This record gives sequence, C-alpha cells and structure tokens, in this order.
Amino acid sequence: MPTLILSKDEVRELLSMSEVIEAVEEAFRNWTQGKGNMPPKAYLGVEQGDFRAMPVYLPGVAGLKWVNVHTANLSRGLPTVMAVWIHNDPETGYPLALMDATDITAYRTGAAAAIASKYLARQDSHTLGIIGAGRQAYTQIQAHAELFELHRINVFDLSEATSEKLVQSFPEYYPRKCTPEEAAASDIVCTLTPAREPLLKKEWIRPGTHINAVGADAEGKEELEASILKEAIVVVDDIRQASAAGEINVPIARGQFAVDDVYANLGEIITGKKQGRTNPETITVFDSTGVAIEDAAVARLVYEKAQKAGTYQSLDLVDG
Amino acid sequence: MPTLILSKDEVRELLSMSEVIEAVEEAFRNWTQGKGNMPPKAYLGVEQGDFRAMPVYLPGVAGLKWVNVHTANLSRGLPTVMAVWIHNDPETGYPLALMDATDITAYRTGAAAAIASKYLARQDSHTLGIIGAGRQAYTQIQAHAELFELHRINVFDLSEATSEKLVQSFPEYYPRKCTPEEAAASDIVCTLTPAREPLLKKEWIRPGTHINAVGADAEGKEELEASILKEAIVVVDDIRQASAAGEINVPIARGQFAVDDVYANLGEIITGKKQGRTNPETITVFDSTGVAIEDAAVARLVYEKAQKAGTYQSLDLVDG
Repeated sequence: MPTLILSKDEVRELLSMSEVIEAVEEAFRNWTQGKGNMPPKAYLGVEQGDFRAMPVYLPGVAGLKWVNVHTANLSRGLPTVMAVWIHNDPETGYPLALMDATDITAYRTGAAAAIASKYLARQDSHTLGIIGAGRQAYTQIQAHAELFELHRINVFDLSEATSEKLVQSFPEYYPRKCTPEEAAASDIVCTLTPAREPLLKKEWIRPGTHINAVGADAEGKEELEASILKEAIVVVDDIRQASAAGEINVPIARGQFAVDDVYANLGEIITGKKQGRTNPETITVFDSTGVAIEDAAVARLVYEKAQKAGTYQSLDLVDG
Repeated sequence: MPTLILSKDEVRELLSMSEVIEAVEEAFRNWTQGKGNMPPKAYLGVEQGDFRAMPVYLPGVAGLKWVNVHTANLSRGLPTVMAVWIHNDPETGYPLALMDATDITAYRTGAAAAIASKYLARQDSHTLGIIGAGRQAYTQIQAHAELFELHRINVFDLSEATSEKLVQSFPEYYPRKCTPEEAAASDIVCTLTPAREPLLKKEWIRPGTHINAVGADAEGKEELEASILKEAIVVVDDIRQASAAGEINVPIARGQFAVDDVYANLGEIITGKKQGRTNPETITVFDSTGVAIEDAAVARLVYEKAQKAGTYQSLDLVDG
C-alpha cells in the first residue's frame, strides 16, 4: 500500500482558505462533542531550540505534527519553524501520507481566528487591525476576508519594510500602514507578535472590539494589557494550553486573571453550548495557542484532495 | 534543502547488524553520560488501537518515532505495528529525512538484547534459547550471532509452523524445535512473546543463565515467574518504562518486586559505573522495553549511509 509524499509547494497548491475554515470549525465541533482525542503536546529540548510532538485523533484521521522552533535559524536563512505531518488511517494505523505542515499551520491559525471572529466580533465588522505584519498576518487577512467584508486593514509592525510588504500584498482590502493605536481602533484586532511585554493598551480599545490574541504561544509571552482581559469576554482554543502558554498565561501567573475567568472554549461557542456575542458594546478576546485538531482537520482535507487528484508521488514506505 | 525519503526496502538494504550493535551501545553510553534527551513516550488512543510518539535527542541527531499498535490488523493482512521515523538536524530542526522505522525497531531490539548478553551472559555462552519464534526472533539470532559463537539454537513456539520457519532460516547455527523447558536450559534465553501469564518457570532455569525478557511492553504483560527476578541480577533499559510496562511491571504491581531491586540500567553497565557479570553461577535478566535512543542511533546510521550513497530520492519538503 503506497504512502503519499507531499512537499510544501504541493500542500500549498491544495490548500483553499474557505475549505480550511469549514474543516477547522468541524474539528472544534467534533472535539467538543467527544469525537476525538488530543493528548498534551510532548516537548523535546535540544541545545539550539526545541521540538513539539502533537498527536491527535479525529473521525477519519489520526496523526502527528512534529514541529521545531529554532530562533537562530533566521541568521542562517532557514525558517525558525518547520513542521511535518504524519497522516495515519485510524482504523489500521497505516501511514497514508507524509507532508509538509508549515502552511497547514499558517492556514489553520488564520482560520481559527476568523472562526472566533465570526462568533465573537460584531456582524458589521469591516476594519481589521494587524499588529505584527509577519508570516501569520497573511493567513489572518485571507481567513477574515472569507467571512467579513473588509473595507480597511490597519497595519502596524516595528519594521517598516515588513508592513509595506503586507500592505502591497492585499490592495483589494484598502490596507494602510499606521500606529499601533490606530490598528487597535479597528473592529477586529489581531495581535501576531512574539512580545513578552504587553503592547496592546487598554485605553486604545473601543467598546465592541474583538481581539484575536495569537502571538503568545509559550510561557512568559504576553501581548495584551491584563486589564483588557479582566473586562473582556475571554474565549480560548484549549484551556490547558492557554493557561500554560497562551495570552492568559502571564496574567494567571501574576494573579491578574484566573482560569475561572475564561468564559468558554471555542468549541463550546461553535456548538452553541455557550453564546457568542450578545451585546454590541462588549470587548471579546480569543486566546489562540494552536491545537492539533486544527492541523488534523486541514491535513485530512489536503490528503483527500491529493488522493483524488492521483498525481502525487507515493512510495511503499512500510509493508502492507 | 532536500529531505531524503527512504522506504522499508531501502532502509533494510542499509541496515547491517554489526554496525547497529555498535551504534546502540554508543547511544546508551551517550545517554548515561547526559549527552541526550529522551522525554517519556506520548500515547494516543483511538478506537481500534493506539499510537506512540517517541521524541529523542542524541549528539548529531534529533527526531521522533511514531508507531502504531493495531492488533486486529493481522486479519486484514496488515502488520500490527508500523513505524515511521522523522530525522532532524538538532542544530536547525531541519527534517533531513523521513523513513520507515519498522526494521530499525526490529534491529535495535535485537542489538540491545545482544549487548546486554555481552555484559551479563557468561563469556562461554554457546546455546541460545528462543521462546516465541515470530518476527523478533530473527534479529535476536542475528545480533547474538555477531557477539557469540552459537553452537545450538533451541526454539519453542506455540505454532509448529512458526518454529519450523525460524529453524529453516538459520541452518548455520544448528537450530532445533524443542519444549519450552529445553529452550530455557540454554546459556542465553530470549523471551519474545505477548504473554500475560508467566511461561518461563523458575525450576527450568540453570545457574549462570542470562535471560533477555523482551516480550513485555505494556502494563499487565509478564513472561517470567517473579521468583526468577527475586533471585537474579536485573538490569533494565530505562527504569521509567520498565517499571510501567516492562517485565517487572506486574511483579511491582503485585508487591513481588520493587524498583529498588533493579541492579542497574544497561547504560550504567556499558559505561562501567556498575559491573556486569562477576560470578558464573548468577542468573541475570535484562528487561528490554525498547527506548527511543536506540532508534535514533540506528536511524542516524541509516541516514548517513543513504546520504553518502547519494542515490536515494529526496524532495523539498519544507522551505530552506
């Protein structure tokens, strides 16, 4: 039985943001309904960085994402983060495919935030604030453009060149470079930085704003002033990960926020167990840490499209 | 930068038992000296079986083995266990290779037992007892034949056909089918069964015997009467795994054996921190559960040989 092998270029070719959004929403629905299994990430530290193993099971797919973080790679001209996905048949364990998961990760992260915005932002949201204009910003814009009619994107980055590149990539949504304060005054604000000191100030946030806090993904990282969280309705993707490594991790450690202050996880909102936005004045925050169910759902989509196309390389990786 | 892709047939072609033994011994030496990192396995349960993620770091190699156990596969004509290895550069995290790890697992398991025999069995051991003549038996014989002059192999299996097939595969070592009692009267005895009730009886074991207890790899599995362990010098590959899932797990749970009764781990014997056999009358037991450092060392060997050959397929799996 052959195993499909998909390179980064091939995976990218097979990714469609509208399909990814649908798959990620379905993944949260299944997981919340108990159809799936996602053990905690396993960490492997090495001298120059670390690796994370993210095993996961959802209906129709079992697998593992293996992803590194090596911050010194930038100086070598290599990406800091590279991800591989092993795609197994849950019925037999057979490795059906091996594929690059770097773009899968970027797409699913954008999709998860846009899904959160769908349930938590005001329906009439038309302006998108981007704080941190690196790689993550592209899929945030693509995903939000699928679900909202964007009239303006307000972009801030410490690097003028990084902002400029993003602005030139999406002329159709009227992007402009601006101050962080101006970006924060958007209907939906996405924070996408590696900050370890809050950069989004409470005083900048208007009533009714929805914030996707995406940057914090490790202990000690923090992008929002804790006073924003105290006043907001806070939704997380996974309470275990969020409290250990997400936007709420530092405020929890400092006693400025508690696990019990979290309103819901995204799956509870999607399945209607908990209501989304009910008041146009409320400030809402989605704390996104990135969960393996998102990867599994998107990888399944990519695998099924590749298999249907029948034009991708495969080899007899194992017996069977 | 390309990623090498190696199929099962290609990996098998690149495996040489004498090199594997050397690499596995070196892996235990490095790990015991603190040069490496091996977090606990992460388990993923699915309806029809389970998966294990085994992340590991040793000098020159970081990586992960992802392996399933689906016992119902036999009726589908598929292997119960299939393993994939992701091979990373520890300096940058780059995925240098993806390869089948099913044979790597079989080879390293044979090698670890033969290394244990080298330090724990009598130097003049010439007879090898095999209890359980399935897949594992082949690499046990190959590995022991590298380190011992075998005059006789005594083979027992519940299936006559399974025994016969093994016997016909190694005519050069004078194999014969026999009773379990006769197999147990060998100088070195390897137990390779999925037993959940002890099948190796204390009364069968002669003074000076070395036993490699390989079969027990999950809670509730047990091949040796606990009274053998109480009298023997017991060495494990990894005390965490052995006490949870190895030969000693059931006796520990029943209070018939204690973690403190373990004499040493294999790395301590190899590095000389603890002595191996000193008395020709002692009974010794190696409790093998299979550890990721063994896989990493063998995968590194395979990768380096494949890269040197330069004739294997590769693709641009990730950017860089």
